[in-house]
Amino acid sequence: MSNISVNILGIGEHSFPSGISPLEIQQSMKGIPSNAIICTIDDHLADLSTPLEQSCTLKYLDGKSKDGHSVLLHSTAHLMAQAVKRLFPKTKVTIGPYLDNRFYYDFDVETPFTEEDLLSIENEMAAIASENLMISHQVISRKEAVNLFQSMDEPYKVEIIEAIDESETLKIYTQGDFTDLCRGPHIANTNQIQHFKLLSSSAAYWRGDENNQTLQRVYGTSFADKKDLKAYLNMLEEQKKRDHRKIGKEMDLFFYDDEVGPGLPLWTPKGSVIIEELESLAKEKESLAGYDRVRTPHLTKGDLYEKSGHLDHYVSSMYPAMDVDGMNYYIKPMNCPHHHKIFASTPKSYRDLPLRLAEYGTCYRYEKSGELFGLMRVRSMQMNDGHIYCTEEQFKDEFLAVCNMYLEYFKIFGIEKYQMRLSLHDPKELGNKFIDNAELWIKTENDVRNALQDAKLNFVESVGDAAFYGPKIDVQVWSAIGREFTLATNQVDFAVPERFALHYTDMNGEAKTPLCIHRAPLGTHERFIGFLIEHFGGNFPLWLAPQQVAVLPVSDKYNDYAESIIKELKDNKIRVKSDLRSEKIGSKIRDAELEKINIMLIIGEKEAEDQSVTVRRRFIKEQQTISVKTFIKDVKDEIKERRVTHQ
Amino acid sequence: MSNISVNILGIGEHSFPSGISPLEIQQSMKGIPSNAIICTIDDHLADLSTPLEQSCTLKYLDGKSKDGHSVLLHSTAHLMAQAVKRLFPKTKVTIGPYLDNRFYYDFDVETPFTEEDLLSIENEMAAIASENLMISHQVISRKEAVNLFQSMDEPYKVEIIEAIDESETLKIYTQGDFTDLCRGPHIANTNQIQHFKLLSSSAAYWRGDENNQTLQRVYGTSFADKKDLKAYLNMLEEQKKRDHRKIGKEMDLFFYDDEVGPGLPLWTPKGSVIIEELESLAKEKESLAGYDRVRTPHLTKGDLYEKSGHLDHYVSSMYPAMDVDGMNYYIKPMNCPHHHKIFASTPKSYRDLPLRLAEYGTCYRYEKSGELFGLMRVRSMQMNDGHIYCTEEQFKDEFLAVCNMYLEYFKIFGIEKYQMRLSLHDPKELGNKFIDNAELWIKTENDVRNALQDAKLNFVESVGDAAFYGPKIDVQVWSAIGREFTLATNQVDFAVPERFALHYTDMNGEAKTPLCIHRAPLGTHERFIGFLIEHFGGNFPLWLAPQQVAVLPVSDKYNDYAESIIKELKDNKIRVKSDLRSEKIGSKIRDAELEKINIMLIIGEKEAEDQSVTVRRRFIKEQQTISVKTFIKDVKDEIKERRVTHQ
Repeated sequence: MSNISVNILGIGEHSFPSGISPLEIQQSMKGIPSNAIICTIDDHLADLSTPLEQSCTLKYLDGKSKDGHSVLLHSTAHLMAQAVKRLFPKTKVTIGPYLDNRFYYDFDVETPFTEEDLLSIENEMAAIASENLMISHQVISRKEAVNLFQSMDEPYKVEIIEAIDESETLKIYTQGDFTDLCRGPHIANTNQIQHFKLLSSSAAYWRGDENNQTLQRVYGTSFADKKDLKAYLNMLEEQKKRDHRKIGKEMDLFFYDDEVGPGLPLWTPKGSVIIEELESLAKEKESLAGYDRVRTPHLTKGDLYEKSGHLDHYVSSMYPAMDVDGMNYYIKPMNCPHHHKIFASTPKSYRDLPLRLAEYGTCYRYEKSGELFGLMRVRSMQMNDGHIYCTEEQFKDEFLAVCNMYLEYFKIFGIEKYQMRLSLHDPKELGNKFIDNAELWIKTENDVRNALQDAKLNFVESVGDAAFYGPKIDVQVWSAIGREFTLATNQVDFAVPERFALHYTDMNGEAKTPLCIHRAPLGTHERFIGFLIEHFGGNFPLWLAPQQVAVLPVSDKYNDYAESIIKELKDNKIRVKSDLRSEKIGSKIRDAELEKINIMLIIGEKEAEDQSVTVRRRFIKEQQTISVKTFIKDVKDEIKERRVTHQ
Repeated sequence: MSNISVNILGIGEHSFPSGISPLEIQQSMKGIPSNAIICTIDDHLADLSTPLEQSCTLKYLDGKSKDGHSVLLHSTAHLMAQAVKRLFPKTKVTIGPYLDNRFYYDFDVETPFTEEDLLSIENEMAAIASENLMISHQVISRKEAVNLFQSMDEPYKVEIIEAIDESETLKIYTQGDFTDLCRGPHIANTNQIQHFKLLSSSAAYWRGDENNQTLQRVYGTSFADKKDLKAYLNMLEEQKKRDHRKIGKEMDLFFYDDEVGPGLPLWTPKGSVIIEELESLAKEKESLAGYDRVRTPHLTKGDLYEKSGHLDHYVSSMYPAMDVDGMNYYIKPMNCPHHHKIFASTPKSYRDLPLRLAEYGTCYRYEKSGELFGLMRVRSMQMNDGHIYCTEEQFKDEFLAVCNMYLEYFKIFGIEKYQMRLSLHDPKELGNKFIDNAELWIKTENDVRNALQDAKLNFVESVGDAAFYGPKIDVQVWSAIGREFTLATNQVDFAVPERFALHYTDMNGEAKTPLCIHRAPLGTHERFIGFLIEHFGGNFPLWLAPQQVAVLPVSDKYNDYAESIIKELKDNKIRVKSDLRSEKIGSKIRDAELEKINIMLIIGEKEAEDQSVTVRRRFIKEQQTISVKTFIKDVKDEIKERRVTHQ
């Protein structure tokens, strides 16, 4: 038997007999962490049981690493399927992938799982884990695979195998009495699955098609250590409490109506306060940044969308055409073509550039009703839209200014974790997937990259994911409790200005095509407010709060004084709720807390005598008695500075 | 021959032989004005040549009275037709009615009239007028009428006669060689037509149907005295200069685009400034008046419009349905149904009323493309909409508050002439054209009438013109040059709240239906801005002006100082245009004047030394040199107070 040389990362180069597995190395050598559950061989993720046939670089991964955690989740899905088959032998298995921090498995069962069923499955999983079952895999032929799963009476697996391309290698994974078709890799032993929890069970359709068999989808999670599992379960609990649909209803911010239609939110007075505040913010910042505001119609001839390319590339996301006077009209899915029209409506010179057009324009996009979700996936969306038309020379500054606007907003909303993903072209796809101007791509991408670096923005790069007309930046943010949201996309566009024949006259009197930056830092009202609700858990900072102050007299005797304060607050444009009911002060406070009103003014004898107010703030234990004048000044400052005092 | 007694208004009762005509009385008695051109006999308008067969009340009218002027216009139309027939004998005549201050006649001619033709016609009209032709009329039978006009080779007249109901009496009017079928009445002699002018000639269709013969429509005007004619022609001239389509283009406020579609304006940065200022005004006033703002989608299921009754009563003004997921969706023609949904979204008690919902909502209505006109008849309209839900007891105060809001706006915009028309139900049509609740109609109408009177609003009443669900008020305003516009409609609605099952719990815990007031004091952005452009002739008051101040250094040497002023103005949110070109100051001033920028700051040596500016205002002769600080304070005050300094 020949020897091979294995470079174990963090350990060093060692010689082993050919055919040895990483698992055998782990068990035989000192210094390799016992919690390694998977490895990469020459940068490819692989089972620990893979025989090493030639010299290679080997890296062990534990369940806390990104890939290690994914494999752990995936193996826990198998463990769950094994438990289900033991407890409910008539169950047919289908697929069981992993997601971010979660996994699921879809089962064809006779009766949907109950809460108790999930508990039993969890217990059975723990039992199997402690059986220390080795997890092994083998490559088999298509025919063998079909025969195997037919003999096991697993028709979904047979269907899956038949749909797999003939050129592909098929693998099965086995642990004790359970065998599944799987690409792997997996951990080596069921006893490595220690900290897991089943989360929920719900209906799903085979292959996601509602005409197919209804399946039961069971979600679960799994971590390498107890602390991480607990933190994740806490976050889920917090998420549930902060669900924007739940809080939106409780706080009466928005609602859907059957006769209006799904995905078309109606914003109540309270929700509209948030919208108006966001628009004021955007107008203020955009005005300082030299934007001009415009207004464009929501309805437009098909001609425009033919020119813009939407009818070629985007029609499935658009609402159907209306025939008006024998012509097709559409409700707009984007504001860009209209802004291009405004650019083109008068001749432009280099003196007019950069031209920055902004509009909080409402767009309509068709989403399947099954894909609609609260404010996150909607059909009507009012977008913080803007288009910057500039020369190549101006591009970098303009782009940087947009990035800085993002940063400024993140600060205002207390968004501490964010990441930008810069999507670049793939040189191999020039002229095919990407417009054929290598030089401009490279220059613009460099400009964007430099701008991001100059702005010290946290970003990653992704080759081949650009739009066909230019590089783009997707912005991810994490809410206060760590939930991830895709907020907005920034795009650089060098194709569309040409399509719309947009021109400016340069200093030498020559016609040039401007670059265009598409930007929407505050995204859409729908998604952004959805995010803010969850980020703040409904406890909005004062400037955004639909109701800022509640005035609560301790008895009817002080209602007159309370009313004078209410008037003064209203005169100062503070949004105030008065509670002059003949209720006990405790119950008034409780109601104000339930409405998430941050500041409560308690009004009693002392306050009426001193012309003062006792200020009670949620999240602050001490009450403070101060003069009305001081209170109003403090509150106005807090609002004006858009301070975030809690999350 | 018996005598009759005629009570001549302003003269007294006199006895005359039966059969005498008002014309004969005028010629035989002293004290009857010689400029009387028509009369009323027992309040019915009649020819002066009408024989008086019995005792009656007679009133003479001159050409300055409302009816007198209409008759003069109508007779001038006949005079024009007579002149046309003399000059172009092959012409076929059709119809020639009068309008407000104008008349027209449609002719079937071989070749369209040229400018020169109109001049010849005018001259011929003057010649016929001085022929002193008596204008006489006679009643003839249908058969005689058909024979007569057939013999005259006037096929359109024959067609008109054949379409007239058989029971109707037919009359012909004759003056010299010209006879026309006409209901009359007319003046007595062509020499009473002295001050007239032909205005234009354009194509029209027979019976307004584009499938029929093309005719030439000649417009003209006529007045009882020269001064009135001149004033009217001046106003037309001024109107032409103030045409909002012309000024809108010159000032670059809005435009239409073929690929977007007719009736769908795009608002440029400059036009959007006006929109945003109007919205700020509305928000400010509505906030003070206790309105809550809401946001609703533009797209909605047909179900909603079935409930609201739009699909029954309004579908021809709506855009066609879109089929989405097998359901009909419409783009909204009105905001009311959505606001009703917001009212209904949570239970309401008497404590929540009045609830005032406001939204500057964009609606879409289908208008035939031929009927579209500038910003006055459009397909997309952003409306200063609002709905007030209140109890019957609150109604009067709420309605009065809306009226006061109108008055406040009129003052802000310097609208000095306005009129409201209160449209009432017709008791005979209760349960038919109007919902069957006589008591509620009478109470509400009285409340509205009292409110209008209390507010000292100028109004007229019109029985039978109410909406089917309640009384309404149409608001007419006159621009600075006296042109009339219908601005908005206020409606009281007692039917729709029931249709939408809107309820509140009254003090006794019983469910009651609220009343609803629909209101839109600033109408739609489109029509209101169209009105404002013509009202101000584009010379907007400072607070509305897209560009408020132009900074014009007299030479490049002072550009630095000019830029420091520009920055200071911008920091103070003043909309400033800088003109730092190396042009002569005279040409910079001329350009700023052309752009209708009200305030020009001239910056030269003295100003740079003193840290001052020389302020030149359009419409004010004297220039003033003041400190920058004083200037900024003055301008900010003028903007804040929304002062109108010129029109």
